[in-house]
Amino acid sequence: MASTVGKVIKCKAAVAWEAGKPLVIEEVEVAPPQAMEVRIKILFTSLCHTDVYFWEAKGQNPVFPRIFGHEAGGIVESVGEGVTELAPGDHVLPVFTGECKECAHCKSAESNMCDLLRINTDRGVMIGDGQSRFSINGKPIFHFVGTSTFSEYTVIHEGCVAKINPAAPLDKVCVLSCGISTGLGATINVAKPPKGSTVAIFGLGAVGLAAAEGARLAGASRIIGVDLNSDRFEAARKFGCTEFVNPKEHTKPVQQVLAEMTNGGVDRSVECTGNINAMIQAFECVHDGWGVAVLVGVPHKDAEFKTHPMNFLNERTLRGTFFGNYKPRTDLPSVVEKYMSGELELDKFITHSVPFSEINTAFDLMLKGESLRCIIRMDE
Amino acid sequence: MASTVGKVIKCKAAVAWEAGKPLVIEEVEVAPPQAMEVRIKILFTSLCHTDVYFWEAKGQNPVFPRIFGHEAGGIVESVGEGVTELAPGDHVLPVFTGECKECAHCKSAESNMCDLLRINTDRGVMIGDGQSRFSINGKPIFHFVGTSTFSEYTVIHEGCVAKINPAAPLDKVCVLSCGISTGLGATINVAKPPKGSTVAIFGLGAVGLAAAEGARLAGASRIIGVDLNSDRFEAARKFGCTEFVNPKEHTKPVQQVLAEMTNGGVDRSVECTGNINAMIQAFECVHDGWGVAVLVGVPHKDAEFKTHPMNFLNERTLRGTFFGNYKPRTDLPSVVEKYMSGELELDKFITHSVPFSEINTAFDLMLKGESLRCIIRMDE
Ligand SMILES: NC(=O)c1ccc[n+]([C@@H]2O[C@H](COP(=O)([O-])OP(=O)(O)OC[C@H]3O[C@@H](n4cnc5c(N)ncnc54)[C@H](O)[C@@H]3O)[C@@H](O)[C@H]2O)c1
Ligand SMILES: NC(=O)c1ccc[n+]([C@@H]2O[C@H](COP(=O)([O-])OP(=O)(O)OC[C@H]3O[C@@H](n4cnc5c(N)ncnc54)[C@H](O)[C@@H]3O)[C@@H](O)[C@H]2O)c1
Ligand SMILES: [Zn+2]
Ligand SMILES: [Zn+2]
Ligand SMILES: [Zn+2]
Ligand SMILES: [Zn+2]
Repeated sequence: MASTVGKVIKCKAAVAWEAGKPLVIEEVEVAPPQAMEVRIKILFTSLCHTDVYFWEAKGQNPVFPRIFGHEAGGIVESVGEGVTELAPGDHVLPVFTGECKECAHCKSAESNMCDLLRINTDRGVMIGDGQSRFSINGKPIFHFVGTSTFSEYTVIHEGCVAKINPAAPLDKVCVLSCGISTGLGATINVAKPPKGSTVAIFGLGAVGLAAAEGARLAGASRIIGVDLNSDRFEAARKFGCTEFVNPKEHTKPVQQVLAEMTNGGVDRSVECTGNINAMIQAFECVHDGWGVAVLVGVPHKDAEFKTHPMNFLNERTLRGTFFGNYKPRTDLPSVVEKYMSGELELDKFITHSVPFSEINTAFDLMLKGESLRCIIRMDE
Repeated sequence: MASTVGKVIKCKAAVAWEAGKPLVIEEVEVAPPQAMEVRIKILFTSLCHTDVYFWEAKGQNPVFPRIFGHEAGGIVESVGEGVTELAPGDHVLPVFTGECKECAHCKSAESNMCDLLRINTDRGVMIGDGQSRFSINGKPIFHFVGTSTFSEYTVIHEGCVAKINPAAPLDKVCVLSCGISTGLGATINVAKPPKGSTVAIFGLGAVGLAAAEGARLAGASRIIGVDLNSDRFEAARKFGCTEFVNPKEHTKPVQQVLAEMTNGGVDRSVECTGNINAMIQAFECVHDGWGVAVLVGVPHKDAEFKTHPMNFLNERTLRGTFFGNYKPRTDLPSVVEKYMSGELELDKFITHSVPFSEINTAFDLMLKGESLRCIIRMDE
């Protein structure tokens, strides 16, 4: 096969022409990577709520035509000028937020909120030159969060690409690009439950189930799932949940229900709903003296977090996290290793799989709440 | 001198007969310590705002007649049944909150909010038998926060007494019983500023200045004092403050003023005002990615802490502390050693000193805002 390096690649991509309309598989032209960029052949991608939100574009800035997709696994096809840490053939996970390794955040041991490559959902172009690398008949198609993985080939900034163990099955570890790592890291990196502790997880979607998986890995002895939808409880058992509370089934506030179940409060809580009431409840249900609550869900822009300050003075801690506090390039490879060693279970998150040609089925499944993660096989 | 062990001691105490009325030095009878209690000869005591609040009893439950006082240094005179860790002659600091060493909080490395001996401002009696150890002509005089140090002798639960180095000058280290340790620990134990970091201190009373002293000890390179009263700024320099902001002198919110001074926010902030606006500002002024805010001030009971949850999701942490997270018996001895080694400076907190007979002068000085700490010399 002739080398594609330095040339435009023609390939298939699922283009969202309009908000909320089914994606259309089109032939697109993918320009070669420019300085600090890499071009990646995507083998597997999965669908996350965030793709759906921005595709629906209700209240969001509509940027169309656009290629969505941000959870994926692929292989580097070629690299642009100045790229030193990646080479053709490397197995990689694209990530919607980056790590430049130069800014104050990247240099801080605590932050992963890179100044240069922090998520930007409004931008549809590359940061290097403000252009798109995708086009159809010379007309640009916009990028999404710097990844656009619903394409056989995509161009991504080097800082948004994690190089992983080439032995890792990309059809499984691709789910680590976003939501699963977010929930897992929220528990392991931020809530840090001690062995034998009690953890409450608010919201049992993919993110919350990953947070429960994190609690299981950390050795929590009780993992209490809290969700308004009792249908989630059955699946949650597989992710380590030992007990369940549906706030709708109680007349008392759920904080009080949890305090009564746990002799004063849970040791840790992780909120994965995006609902402001759940955020407040997740904070107020932790034990005084040592309780830590972690917020993960993305709130409504007018939401207001309200609580009596005495809840803090009684030695509770409240923290928020973004992408589970993982630095994409530095930390994701070791999360992949946790899967390789059998410690971290990923297969249970993957409820469906479809060929690329049926990508709209993945959207339907998520909208109906039937899937956790649906893998999209690019080469079919 | 005949032994007093097992006998009632007659001595002088400053009795608050009524809310807001000058204390009266009276001869009181101090009963021997009962099980788990010790009787202490107080040599020095100092005045804290909390004494004044409960003496004024505005909005508080009035418990009178009462003997106030909770910052002090003294020597154990005798011990009750079952006391194993203290003996006559030991040099000690009484503390308004205790450490039973048995409950879940005492056993947790993180909490100092002992279930048994946690501060209780309403209780005027000993927890062992529900009686007072003070009386005048058989009529009980009530205790205050289990310490009542405005008396030549007092009876305290063993769990509320820290045994310290007998070489430590009690007329200095007595200020470690409450406010100074609270501020110091809030910074050192909870905010934990890294060396070279920038710390904002909201409120430059004794507690805030102790928080600044903690930042100085931790090696912070910028310590920004924030107070509505610019008169506090001059004194604050001695406590390590390098810069000052009076929110009244700015039209922009103080969060924004601080963000502009620090390239995005301070690394740590410690709130020592009790004012809810300052609490919110102290949280919102910390840098995203790694900022930690610590609340110390005791808020109004109807106060509500309000912020946009995105301020948490941007990786900020909010914690509250009680007594600087120090466990009184386990940790105070080492704070005394920090003073003995010259690392911690205490003398600068002591602005006044009066004989016991002039204890009401200490109240006047504090009410006029002229003193940080006024030492009361019991044997004069
Ligand atoms: N999906 C991602 O990749 C990702 C990444 C980072 C952050 N987040 C955020 O994490 C949150 C969860 O994501 P998800 O994909 O798991 O969502 P999801 O919609 O699949 O799951 C959310 C769950 O929360 C439950 N819920 C809603 N309100 C509740 C309440 N008040 N109390 C208890 N349960 C409640 C719902 O019933 C649902 O089961 C979202 O806010 C999302 O924006 C997601
Ligand atoms: N004093 C103690 O022993 C102790 C112990 C634990 C907790 N506390 C709490 O700590 C707080 C401080 O105690 P203190 O003795 O230093 O009090 P203080 O009254 O001497 O000092 C408080 C300072 O805060 C300033 N202030 C008030 N509102 C402000 C605002 N909105 N912005 C900026 N500055 C503001 C005041 O001007 C004052 O200088 C109180 O709430 C107290 O209850 C005190
Ligand atoms: Zn960076
Ligand atoms: Zn996602
Ligand atoms: Zn205890
Ligand atoms: Zn005090």
